[in-house]
Amino acid sequence: MLDNRAFDIIFREARTHNGWLPKPVPDDILRELHDLMKWGPTSANCSPARILFIRTKEAKERLKPALSSANRDKTMAAPVTAIVAYDLKFYDFLPKLFPHNQTARSWFTSDEEVARITAIRNGTLQGAYMMIAARALGLDCGPMSGFDNAKVDAEFFAGQSLKSNFLCNLGYGDPSKLFNRSPRLSFDEACKIL
Amino acid sequence: MLDNRAFDIIFREARTHNGWLPKPVPDDILRELHDLMKWGPTSANCSPARILFIRTKEAKERLKPALSSANRDKTMAAPVTAIVAYDLKFYDFLPKLFPHNQTARSWFTSDEEVARITAIRNGTLQGAYMMIAARALGLDCGPMSGFDNAKVDAEFFAGQSLKSNFLCNLGYGDPSKLFNRSPRLSFDEACKIL
Repeated sequence: MLDNRAFDIIFREARTHNGWLPKPVPDDILRELHDLMKWGPTSANCSPARILFIRTKEAKERLKPALSSANRDKTMAAPVTAIVAYDLKFYDFLPKLFPHNQTARSWFTSDEEVARITAIRNGTLQGAYMMIAARALGLDCGPMSGFDNAKVDAEFFAGQSLKSNFLCNLGYGDPSKLFNRSPRLSFDEACKIL
Repeated sequence: MLDNRAFDIIFREARTHNGWLPKPVPDDILRELHDLMKWGPTSANCSPARILFIRTKEAKERLKPALSSANRDKTMAAPVTAIVAYDLKFYDFLPKLFPHNQTARSWFTSDEEVARITAIRNGTLQGAYMMIAARALGLDCGPMSGFDNAKVDAEFFAGQSLKSNFLCNLGYGDPSKLFNRSPRLSFDEACKIL
């Protein structure tokens, strides 16, 4: 198992950041991030998440009109903003991803709603793996749902089978810009043992 | 950041298990699991995941009719099966969870579809946090979508606002029962830097 320091880094002391230190995020660490998160489990190894790492000023300007006012400035200032998306046609990779059953693709091509739910559920699990992997690599995260998904999809995924899920700023957080930490549910509020 | 051993435990060497060693999972570790996973980020700290840990023979028998044939025997044999659910009325906890804005509840009570998407997205992120936290605590996971959600909801959540998302067996995995590991997408197949 992990030690206390690791528990702190990935869960207990990790915070959602709003301000960013002027420290760049090199491409290499984004590749390391994918090399970790890709191992997280998905149903039939379907791996539907697709990530667009927005880093240049030009790409950020394309994202800007889709951001809610509360998320605009901090996102424009972040070293990288990940558009965490899922591919509704993830099943085209199943012959590679699920090699021991070459009929797996047909489970999804035969039922669009099953494919959609599978893409959303597993693409979201992978979004969480991405955030934990980022923290494990020493990065901080600032995930956000406050944006216009349709605008992002039209701007970045027109004519493709990709849909945006959530956004996540990535970089090295400025602890002076943190809000106070909010309380969590107790075990008895969230869980039950039967 | 974490070290290589920790990367292996939570991502690189962690596997989806199908067979379980005869080693019990005490209640205390389920409480520790919640004490870690609860810190993972959710939108407006909404924390919609609810987990039912199915452990007794009686509770497992109630789950059994909802399981797909491929998942039945391994689930009946697992020390614990978590029903990872989400609460469509998660917003009733927002006055506690998001104390600095006492109007947050109304963002969701005014739009049932926004509430539903928020519950699914964030409840699924928390499901991933649960699996990573389990691995961090030395447990193994066996997540599954192959079951009848409606049957589970009718049996365990009748008259409640909870909906099942996925199942996850928890325990100490038997490495001799592992399948070969399937390949993952490359960075260039899953990601792009703009």
